[in-house]
Amino acid sequence: MLNFTFQNPTKSHFGEDQIKMIATEIPANAKVLLVYGGGSIKQNGVYDQVVNALSEHTWFEFSGIEPNPKYDTLMKAQQLIKQHDVDYLLAVGGGSVVDGCKFIAAAALFNGDDPWDILAKQTPITAALPMGAVLTLPATGSESNGNSVVTRDGHKLPFSSPIVRPQFAVLDPKVTLSLSDRQISNGVIDAFVHTIEQYLTYSVNAKVQDRFAEGLLQTLIEEGPKALAAQSNEDLEVRANIMWSATMALNGLIGAGVPQDWSTHMIGHELTGGFGIDHARTRSIVLPAVMKVKRQEKREKLVQYAERVWQITDEDETVKIDKAIAKTEAFFKQMDVPTRLSDVNISEKDIDDLVSMLEQHGMVALGEHSDITLAVSKQILEKAL
Amino acid sequence: MLNFTFQNPTKSHFGEDQIKMIATEIPANAKVLLVYGGGSIKQNGVYDQVVNALSEHTWFEFSGIEPNPKYDTLMKAQQLIKQHDVDYLLAVGGGSVVDGCKFIAAAALFNGDDPWDILAKQTPITAALPMGAVLTLPATGSESNGNSVVTRDGHKLPFSSPIVRPQFAVLDPKVTLSLSDRQISNGVIDAFVHTIEQYLTYSVNAKVQDRFAEGLLQTLIEEGPKALAAQSNEDLEVRANIMWSATMALNGLIGAGVPQDWSTHMIGHELTGGFGIDHARTRSIVLPAVMKVKRQEKREKLVQYAERVWQITDEDETVKIDKAIAKTEAFFKQMDVPTRLSDVNISEKDIDDLVSMLEQHGMVALGEHSDITLAVSKQILEKAL
Repeated sequence: MLNFTFQNPTKSHFGEDQIKMIATEIPANAKVLLVYGGGSIKQNGVYDQVVNALSEHTWFEFSGIEPNPKYDTLMKAQQLIKQHDVDYLLAVGGGSVVDGCKFIAAAALFNGDDPWDILAKQTPITAALPMGAVLTLPATGSESNGNSVVTRDGHKLPFSSPIVRPQFAVLDPKVTLSLSDRQISNGVIDAFVHTIEQYLTYSVNAKVQDRFAEGLLQTLIEEGPKALAAQSNEDLEVRANIMWSATMALNGLIGAGVPQDWSTHMIGHELTGGFGIDHARTRSIVLPAVMKVKRQEKREKLVQYAERVWQITDEDETVKIDKAIAKTEAFFKQMDVPTRLSDVNISEKDIDDLVSMLEQHGMVALGEHSDITLAVSKQILEKAL
Repeated sequence: MLNFTFQNPTKSHFGEDQIKMIATEIPANAKVLLVYGGGSIKQNGVYDQVVNALSEHTWFEFSGIEPNPKYDTLMKAQQLIKQHDVDYLLAVGGGSVVDGCKFIAAAALFNGDDPWDILAKQTPITAALPMGAVLTLPATGSESNGNSVVTRDGHKLPFSSPIVRPQFAVLDPKVTLSLSDRQISNGVIDAFVHTIEQYLTYSVNAKVQDRFAEGLLQTLIEEGPKALAAQSNEDLEVRANIMWSATMALNGLIGAGVPQDWSTHMIGHELTGGFGIDHARTRSIVLPAVMKVKRQEKREKLVQYAERVWQITDEDETVKIDKAIAKTEAFFKQMDVPTRLSDVNISEKDIDDLVSMLEQHGMVALGEHSDITLAVSKQILEKAL
């Protein structure tokens, strides 16, 4: 395997009724800003649980963080932070809220001229307000990593720093029972593709990382459809397994010491930025096309994926790979997400625009070999039509 | 799965030539005590690498920590710490050195009357000197957890606290090339049994933890024998996979949210304490007997273990379990460790003494159901004859 440094100090409180743990995780004298989204947490009881847990704290609130959190929205929190001397942030929501809260945390203590530089110029941050997270939608792993993606004027821009990694995360699978089918699907697909992006490259003989990644994929394949099935959609064990899989999929563990291929992610960002497609649904469209276009380069791992994740036993490697890709697409369809650009009304005439957006964002050498040029991205998009 | 809290802040620097990272991990103004064992690190070049990395630091050294580190030896370090105002410890060695260093760290800042109480009375510690670890023998996972076992007068006594978890661990698989076959075997078996102890209980439908545990077991089964084979005993990739497996086997991850059965460990401690048997070799003797005596209680997981780890496809569950236990014993034999008490010259007449040592140490209700009473431990020891 490759040399690596791995550290993940986020403390996870996992299980039913763990929201109360925030009372002791946040310093008693902190001035807390509760950061959330559109208000669904007021319907499903999470808001009340958080407010109860904060009964001994001084706290304020900032709501309205949208999916694909917007720069302008996030900057509005700064005034509140200054006004009340806020010194601790608590994100309550899914990946967008947690991502947005990370940017708020970094912008609050940014020592440059303009916090926009954190995204636009990738200016490294040197400080951020401490934060915790109460996760309501398992998907992005943001509750346990230092990654964030912020949108401005249709551009999705990432930044990453260990300084914005949440100090703690509360993962109560019970709060996910009120999610819509679409949210469940998106979450499972997001975690699945994250795992693939750190697994389906070329082998560096990293056996533990491979086995762990395969274990996550198998779990998501087994549990995802159960979470959508009406008869079991209140199965807490199913939700618990999906929730922990999603955290493990992007907390740094399975990606330590292995090559990674984030091309699906990056090409997908342009589908969200340009056409407003849900993050996860861009990935179920792009990933099968990446597998097809890069099947030679990924041959060894595709065979391993076929054998270990899908138990495909055919002798012929080409057949094995074909079947594994078909199984992946069938799983995506079972999870009720699109697998083609045509499913979301994007057609051949849009491809040049998407490619020029990739160019504009510097995404000109993607993949584990940096060989997914703009021309190859175009092939991938054409294959996804 | 069960509710849990999981946190592991230890930073792992993994790979060839990573020992140099200690130069930046240890604060520049620290007064460092280098803690090591019998001096093998002077033969294999590790000592020189550590000394080079500490060239800008003020440091002292304390050597002579033995396998199953002794209380009296460890207490000798305290004088050196006081004399030189040592404020950072660096353990360089295997699990015994790291375990011993944890006790030194805790004893140095113990605010009770007698540091012996940390072990004898399980008095909680409230402070400890910070420490890092350079691992030379992958086995116990001590480099990334808060556990320690110290021996006094033939009694092995554990203590555990997140306060003594190493801040960082350097894992360079290259340094393991100089290990003896016996050390390699012991390390692989130790990691294998640690994994089993957090896996082979009863199912709580914790799919991620199960898959991760199975992945570690499969990796150790694949790689262990290769590390012993003369033709490949310099295969760095093999050593790397074993090293990362051993860390993952006992860093808290696979044990989060699942029942655990440490009976093999605890019964094994008495074999070390009473008869001086290597830690790992007690476990290869005791584990098969635990599987046999508790096969009904562990039936579901034994079947899963047979199917997923050993790919046993027989229809009949009893046959499946028989074969899985036989495969486990065959693997232990392949790793050249004993699987019976008779292999280490312990006979039926010694069993009563072992049981009374278990009683003396309070080990009267072991296992995931706390139903391994002294009578059951006796059955296990008899089965292991």
